[in-house]
Amino acid sequence: VATEDELIRATIERYQSTFSAGDREGWLALFAEDAALEDPVGSPPRQGRDDIAAFWDDVHRRADAITVRMVQGPAVCGDEAAWAFETVVQTGGQSVMISIIDLGSFDADGRIRRLRAFWDASGIRRA
Amino acid sequence: VATEDELIRATIERYQSTFSAGDREGWLALFAEDAALEDPVGSPPRQGRDDIAAFWDDVHRRADAITVRMVQGPAVCGDEAAWAFETVVQTGGQSVMISIIDLGSFDADGRIRRLRAFWDASGIRRA
Repeated sequence: VATEDELIRATIERYQSTFSAGDREGWLALFAEDAALEDPVGSPPRQGRDDIAAFWDDVHRRADAITVRMVQGPAVCGDEAAWAFETVVQTGGQSVMISIIDLGSFDADGRIRRLRAFWDASGIRRA
Repeated sequence: VATEDELIRATIERYQSTFSAGDREGWLALFAEDAALEDPVGSPPRQGRDDIAAFWDDVHRRADAITVRMVQGPAVCGDEAAWAFETVVQTGGQSVMISIIDLGSFDADGRIRRLRAFWDASGIRRA
């Protein structure tokens, strides 16, 4: 039986791999039904899987490909975790890299209850 | 006049530089009087400057030198920020490196209201 720590790490790993693979349903399944996604921090949270699916569609409509690469972590503390990563967004021949730090809280099954993405203009550059 | 964004960035920069320099008073001055420091996340927060000073003393009593190096960020979102860094703790000839992600919230003067440090055993290694 996996510990909560192991479940959380597995969720974060799948979060990164499904995102890079463009696996919308696999990515959505990682969220609890009533999860909240705040991306970037300070924007109105997307609430529930339908709203989070709409976020995925918004992001992917504008890009040809999006991949992510872990930079540091995850550091798992109880039912919370933080990790630093870079995402590369390719749009018509151009690539932009965005440095992001995600902060997540998880339920007992390792599903995401709340995810907050910290990024700002200082972390965006041509790739 | 500095914006809150600039004040927060200046605080984080001084947080790193005072810590690496062993500048206890300079470091403490970055916290609001009633600030909370939760290090690691999940432990009982240190509340107020006296308690935070005791944390500094605890950490430094056990080490000959502690330095920090920024890895990613800070990403500043409103009155919150997140950044990933590594700290090297030297104790009697041995060095240990710990990967940490800090999450801070700040008051209008850029002083730290709350700081949460995410780190776990997976991010500790010989340096």
